[in-house]
Amino acid sequence: MVLVLVILAPATTSPAHGQPAPVDPLPSWNDGTSKRAIVDFVTRVTKEGVPDFVPIAERIATFDNDGTLWCEQPVYTQAFFAFDRVKQLAAVHPEFKVNEPYRSILEGDQAAMARFGSHEITALLAATHAGMTTDEFNRLASTWLDTARHPRFHQLFKACVYQPQIELLAYLRANQFKTFIVTGGGIDFVRAFAEATYGIPPEQVIGSSTKTRFELRDGKFVLVKLAELNSIDDKVGKPININLHIGRRPILAFGNSDGDLEMLQYTASGAGLRLMLLLHHDDATREYDYDRKSRVGTLDLAWDEAVKQGWLVVSLKDDFKTVFAFEK
Amino acid sequence: MVLVLVILAPATTSPAHGQPAPVDPLPSWNDGTSKRAIVDFVTRVTKEGVPDFVPIAERIATFDNDGTLWCEQPVYTQAFFAFDRVKQLAAVHPEFKVNEPYRSILEGDQAAMARFGSHEITALLAATHAGMTTDEFNRLASTWLDTARHPRFHQLFKACVYQPQIELLAYLRANQFKTFIVTGGGIDFVRAFAEATYGIPPEQVIGSSTKTRFELRDGKFVLVKLAELNSIDDKVGKPININLHIGRRPILAFGNSDGDLEMLQYTASGAGLRLMLLLHHDDATREYDYDRKSRVGTLDLAWDEAVKQGWLVVSLKDDFKTVFAFEK
Repeated sequence: MVLVLVILAPATTSPAHGQPAPVDPLPSWNDGTSKRAIVDFVTRVTKEGVPDFVPIAERIATFDNDGTLWCEQPVYTQAFFAFDRVKQLAAVHPEFKVNEPYRSILEGDQAAMARFGSHEITALLAATHAGMTTDEFNRLASTWLDTARHPRFHQLFKACVYQPQIELLAYLRANQFKTFIVTGGGIDFVRAFAEATYGIPPEQVIGSSTKTRFELRDGKFVLVKLAELNSIDDKVGKPININLHIGRRPILAFGNSDGDLEMLQYTASGAGLRLMLLLHHDDATREYDYDRKSRVGTLDLAWDEAVKQGWLVVSLKDDFKTVFAFEK
Repeated sequence: MVLVLVILAPATTSPAHGQPAPVDPLPSWNDGTSKRAIVDFVTRVTKEGVPDFVPIAERIATFDNDGTLWCEQPVYTQAFFAFDRVKQLAAVHPEFKVNEPYRSILEGDQAAMARFGSHEITALLAATHAGMTTDEFNRLASTWLDTARHPRFHQLFKACVYQPQIELLAYLRANQFKTFIVTGGGIDFVRAFAEATYGIPPEQVIGSSTKTRFELRDGKFVLVKLAELNSIDDKVGKPININLHIGRRPILAFGNSDGDLEMLQYTASGAGLRLMLLLHHDDATREYDYDRKSRVGTLDLAWDEAVKQGWLVVSLKDDFKTVFAFEK
C-alpha cells in the first residue's frame, strides 16, 4: 500500500495549545461582506451531506486575468509586450519608422495609439505574435516578463498581481477546486507566466488565440503561430470557450468588466449554489480608480447585472487589505 | 494540519510476509517487449535525480479513443448513435423515409451508407447533433450509452473498452501523469462517458467540435450546438488542439491509425525521453483484424513511421492478455 501524504492547508499555528488556532486562509482580505460570502460559499459547497454540497469533480472556478488577477492599467500588459517587440524588431525593420502603426509606437504617440482600431491591432498581432513557433513565442514572452516593469509601480509586471486573489486561488485549490483562467488576453502569453505566478498550469488557461500550422522545421515537428485569429475569448467567447475547454459549467466565476458578463451569466445559470464576483476598481491611491465612475460605459452592463442579480461586487479599496505583495 | 491520505496504488498482496510482494499494475498485459517498454519508460521518467526524470507538471499523456481505448468496429460507435437518433427522429420527421441520407439509414442499406461522403455526414450531424443545448445533448448521449449494445459482442458499447488500456491509464495516473483523450470523435459525445469509463474528466477530453451559440432559453443562459463545424480533431488537428487545450507537448502518446500520426510526431519531437505507441488490430478472434493487412491504406503512414522511428507497435493479439473486462 503506497500512502502519500498530501498537506492541504495548514490549519494550526500554536501546536503548544490544546486547541489549534485556525489560520486565516485569506489574510490579505479585510473582514467584511465579501470575505464572509466567499468563505461561506466554500464552506457550504465542500461540506458533505448538506444540500449545497458539490462533488470535487464539479468544483470548477474560472477567473478573468486582466483587471481581475493582475493590474490592467494604464493599458493591458500584453500591449506593453507588443510595443517592446515593435521597438526590438525596428532594428531589422527600418520601414517601421515610417509605416503605421509602428511609427506611432516608436515615437510614443499616445494619442495615435489610443485611436488604434482592429486594422492596426491585426497588423501589430501579425508583426509581434506570429511567424514564430509556439516554443519560440513562449521564450520571448517569458524573457520579457522576467525584466519588464510597470511604468507606475516600477515592479515587474508579473509582480503586479493582486495578493488577495493569489490567496483566493490557493484557498479554492486547498478545497479541491480546479482553478482556471479565462482571459481575453492571448492564451500563449498568459500561459508563459500563469503556472509560476498563479499556480495555474497551461492546460487550465483559456484565452484568445490565433491559428497555428503544424510543420517540420529543422527535423522537428512544431506549431507555427499564424496571424489569423482562431478565437476571441471575450464576452460570449468566454462561455463558449469554457464549454469547449472544460465541458462543465463553473460554480464560481470572478471577473471585472463587461467582457466577463457572459461568463458570469453562464455560471449563474447552473443549478445549485453559485458564486459570481465582480472586482470594482475604486482605489486611485493603491491601484487605479476606473470602471463606471471614471470611464463611463466600460463597466455598465456587468455592474448593472451584478447589482440586479445580487452578485458579489468586491471593492478593491474596501475588501483588499493588501493589493500587491510588494507593498509589504 | 489537515492530512489527507491518498491511496495511489496497492503495492502489496501478502502483508503476512516481511517483504511486500509487488503487485502488477498491468495484469491484462502479457509480459513482453511492449509491457516492459511501458514500465521501463514510466520508471525512468518518474525517478528523481536521473537525466530522464520529468517533473510532474510535464507528465502529459494523450490517448486517441476510437480503436485505441475502445472498439471502433464494425463502424465508429458514434455512427451507431447517429443512426439510432435518425430512427428516433423519424417518428416526427416522416420526410426521413424518402430523403437521403436518412432513407438509407432507416432501411439499413449498408452499401449506401458506406458511400456517405461529407455532404451526407454534414446533414446527419445537423439532424442528430445540433439544435439542442449542450446539456440536452449530454443527456441524449448518456441515455443512449446506458442501453446501446455492440452488435457482435452484445455488451454495452461503453463496456467494449480495452481492459489493458484502462489499467495503463490508471498506472500512468498513479505515477502522477495527467491523462488526456485526443479523439477524432465528437468532444461532447466522448465527454458523456469518459469520466465514468476511463476516469478522464471532461476538461481532459479534446475532440472534434461544432460551434455553439450562447443564448437565453427559459430564463437560463445555455449553449446551443450548431451544425457548423468548429474543429476536426484528426491528423494535424490533433497537435493543433493539443497545443490549444493543453499548451504542452505530451511525453507519451498512444494511437492506432493514420489520424494519430501527427500527434505521435509532435510527441516524438520534444526533448527528453518520450514514448510513442501504436495499437495494431490483429486479433479477429477476440476483436477485429484490420489495419494494413485487411484494409490497405488505412494504417500505412503511421505504421511505416512507427517502424522507421522505432515507436512501440502494440499487438492486440500478443500484448493484450485480456481484451475486454467482460471476457473474464
